[in-house]
Amino acid sequence: MAVYPESFESLKEFFKKLPGIGEKSAERMALASLELPLEELESASQMLIFAKKNLKPCSVCGYLTDQEVCPICSDELRDHSLICVVEDYKSAFAFEKAGNFKGVYHVLNNLISPMDNIGADDINLNSLIKRVEKLDHPELILALKSSIEGETTTLYIKKIFENQGVTISRLSYGLPSGAEIDYLDMFTIDRALEDRKKISE
Amino acid sequence: MAVYPESFESLKEFFKKLPGIGEKSAERMALASLELPLEELESASQMLIFAKKNLKPCSVCGYLTDQEVCPICSDELRDHSLICVVEDYKSAFAFEKAGNFKGVYHVLNNLISPMDNIGADDINLNSLIKRVEKLDHPELILALKSSIEGETTTLYIKKIFENQGVTISRLSYGLPSGAEIDYLDMFTIDRALEDRKKISE
Repeated sequence: MAVYPESFESLKEFFKKLPGIGEKSAERMALASLELPLEELESASQMLIFAKKNLKPCSVCGYLTDQEVCPICSDELRDHSLICVVEDYKSAFAFEKAGNFKGVYHVLNNLISPMDNIGADDINLNSLIKRVEKLDHPELILALKSSIEGETTTLYIKKIFENQGVTISRLSYGLPSGAEIDYLDMFTIDRALEDRKKISE
Repeated sequence: MAVYPESFESLKEFFKKLPGIGEKSAERMALASLELPLEELESASQMLIFAKKNLKPCSVCGYLTDQEVCPICSDELRDHSLICVVEDYKSAFAFEKAGNFKGVYHVLNNLISPMDNIGADDINLNSLIKRVEKLDHPELILALKSSIEGETTTLYIKKIFENQGVTISRLSYGLPSGAEIDYLDMFTIDRALEDRKKISE
């Protein structure tokens, strides 16, 4: 005999497909969801389908949205000539949560990685070129991670746009906020040293 | 502006209601569920409702089931005069997973706890008394946790059934399998000492 009733087992299997959820957690989550009120489960299950069907990349920038053009690209108060180039929409979420960036985004959906056979044509770059062409004095902030792929992509984008009147910057590298220096890896330390900022002369 | 599209936010809120899921994990799980195929989400969302509506305690023993009487109570190959008394159906799941118990269960749904105002009438005990009355030479295994509430309940049930031709045992206390002795709490060590088993004379 199976340990669990079949419907419980299927529910558990669903949770197990989510990241970081093993056998035990899936069981706990399935049990906990049985204890939620029926209305909450109904709305959750509708939302699961609705979100899957309606959330898609913004046709301008690639941010996750349930509209054709995302609220960031439609927001006239934001600076549309200041484009923060990110790897994925999760990175754009992180900037929005930090809350101080008033420009717009461009989601690449990937990084150039010769090792994984991902070239410049496989990332969402052509649409960035077209966006930039239409702007006066555009500024690009390359907010890609500090890794071989991130830096390859940063260099590649820099090459495309240099000497074309486009201001380009990258995020500074250095100590993450609150980090204990003795726990940092040597690359971060090297970077923080290289990018050091003079504070007195 | 909200960081996330509304439908994504609601999905995240659902996951946040599950145990051990904070802001970050809920976000990761909502993102991951968007990446599952639509059919899987559809079946998961149906199952969420189906399980909630159909899973209920077995009318005989209290095990979680989607039938009136659970497969364990309907199984004629099991020993119906050997009843393992557990606190909740999760404990019964644990025995079924271990797989060696061939009797049936009785789920109390709670333990006696004067501190929390839970008395003998608040646990599923009357139905156990009725079950036991109908049996020849019944045996009860009290499989309640080793805590004040567990032991109070064990003692109470022992009192009810003693001198009535009912064999009663409790689980042995002692070292959990694989535990490092130097990490055990003193109660477990005391118990293991008290319940020690002679292996040679």
